[in-house]
Amino acid sequence: MFPNKKVQALVGQKIQVEMKGEKNILEGTLVSADDYLNLHMVDTTEIQGGQKLRTLGSVVLRGNNIILLNPLKE
Amino acid sequence: MFPNKKVQALVGQKIQVEMKGEKNILEGTLVSADDYLNLHMVDTTEIQGGQKLRTLGSVVLRGNNIILLNPLKE
Amino acid sequence: MFPNKKVQALVGQKIQVEMKGEKNILEGTLVSADDYLNLHMVDTTEIQGGQKLRTLGSVVLRGNNIILLNPLKE
Amino acid sequence: MFPNKKVQALVGQKIQVEMKGEKNILEGTLVSADDYLNLHMVDTTEIQGGQKLRTLGSVVLRGNNIILLNPLKE
Amino acid sequence: MFPNKKVQALVGQKIQVEMKGEKNILEGTLVSADDYLNLHMVDTTEIQGGQKLRTLGSVVLRGNNIILLNPLKE
Amino acid sequence: MFPNKKVQALVGQKIQVEMKGEKNILEGTLVSADDYLNLHMVDTTEIQGGQKLRTLGSVVLRGNNIILLNPLKE
Repeated sequence: MFPNKKVQALVGQKIQVEMKGEKNILEGTLVSADDYLNLHMVDTTEIQGGQKLRTLGSVVLRGNNIILLNPLKE
Repeated sequence: MFPNKKVQALVGQKIQVEMKGEKNILEGTLVSADDYLNLHMVDTTEIQGGQKLRTLGSVVLRGNNIILLNPLKE
Repeated sequence: MFPNKKVQALVGQKIQVEMKGEKNILEGTLVSADDYLNLHMVDTTEIQGGQKLRTLGSVVLRGNNIILLNPLKE
Repeated sequence: MFPNKKVQALVGQKIQVEMKGEKNILEGTLVSADDYLNLHMVDTTEIQGGQKLRTLGSVVLRGNNIILLNPLKE
Repeated sequence: MFPNKKVQALVGQKIQVEMKGEKNILEGTLVSADDYLNLHMVDTTEIQGGQKLRTLGSVVLRGNNIILLNPLKE
Repeated sequence: MFPNKKVQALVGQKIQVEMKGEKNILEGTLVSADDYLNLHMVDTTEIQGGQKLRTLGSVVLRGNNIILLNPLKE
C-alpha cells in the first residue's frame, strides 16, 4: 500500500500529526486527505507533553508542511 | 469533502491562518483560494496573544507556506 | 478573483513582500508575476522598522519563498 | 539506478531517515515509497545519540521534508 | 518580461543570490538557469559583509531554495 | 548546459553538497541524479571544518532540500 493510500485508510480515525516548525503535536479525527497529504481534521487539539494546549476544532493542514503522521494509539 | 473543497467552502468567512516561520496568527475574511491553497484575504490583521499587532488589509498568502487554517470562532 | 489574478492586478504598483526566513520586508514596484508567484520587482528596498536598510534595485523573488504580499499603503 | 529506484530497492529493509528541522533520526522498516519519496514505515523509533527516544510504530513521512535516508547498518 | 525570462536575460552576467537559511550571499557568473530557477554559476564566491569568505567555483543552486537574486552592481 | 545536465555530468565524480538546515557538508561519489536533483551518493561522509564527522555510506538525498552542490576540488 503506497503512502497516500495508507493515509486514505486512516480517514475516520484519530491521528497525530507533526508539522514543520511546530514544537507541538496536533491530534484529531481525519475527515479527508488528498494525494498531496493536505488533511482536513475535526476535533483537533494541540498537544504539548501529553497535555491539551489549545482546541482548534476543524482545521485544514497543508500537506507539504507535514513532517509525519501516525494513527493515535489509544 | 477534500481539504481544498473545505477551504473553498470558507470563502466569505473569517478565518485564522498560521504561516510557516511566523510567530503570529493572521485573521481576515477569505476572498478566494485556489487548489494550492494560495489565499486572498481582506481586512487582515496580525494577532499576537489575542491582541491586534498590525493591520495588513488586503493580502495574498502563498499556499505552500501555510501550516494550517481554520474558521474563526466568533 | 483568484489569488494569482489578484497578484497580476498589482503589476505596476508598489507592493510589500515578506519572504520566508527574512526579518525584513521588501518594498518595490511589481514588474511581473507568474502563476507560481515568482516576482520581478524594480526599485526594491529592504525595510526594517520603517527605515530603508538596503537598496536592491531590480530583483527576482522565488514564489515558493514568499510568505505574503500586499499593496503598499501610501 | 535513479534515486527513487534506489529507495524502492530498500522496501522491506531497515532504514534511517533524517527529517527537516528534526534533531533526531527515525529508524524503521520501509513498507512503501512513492516517487515523491513519501514513505510508509513500521516499527519506527526516534533515535537520539544511539538511544531510543520514542516509539512511533506505523508512520507516514512526507517526502519533501526528508533530508536524507540510508540503509541501516546492522 | 516574466520573472523566469528576466533570469534568462542575466545569463553571462555577474549576479548575487540569497539562499534560504544562509547568512551569506553568493556572487558569481550565471551560466544557465531553467524555469524552476535552478542555476549553474561559475567563479562563485561566498560574501559576508562585503568580504570574500569562501571560493566555491562551479556550483549548481536548487531553485526552490533561492530567496532572491539580482544583477551585481559593479 | 542547463543546471540538471550539469549535475548529470558529475555522475561518477566526487561532489560536495550543502543541505537545508544542516551545518555540515556531505561529500561522496555521485551515483545518479534525476531532474528534481534527488541524488544517490556512495562513500558519503559528513564533514565539519575539514574533518570527517560521520560515515554515512550509501545515501539518497531529497533534491528540494539541497541548497547547492559543486564538484569536490581535489
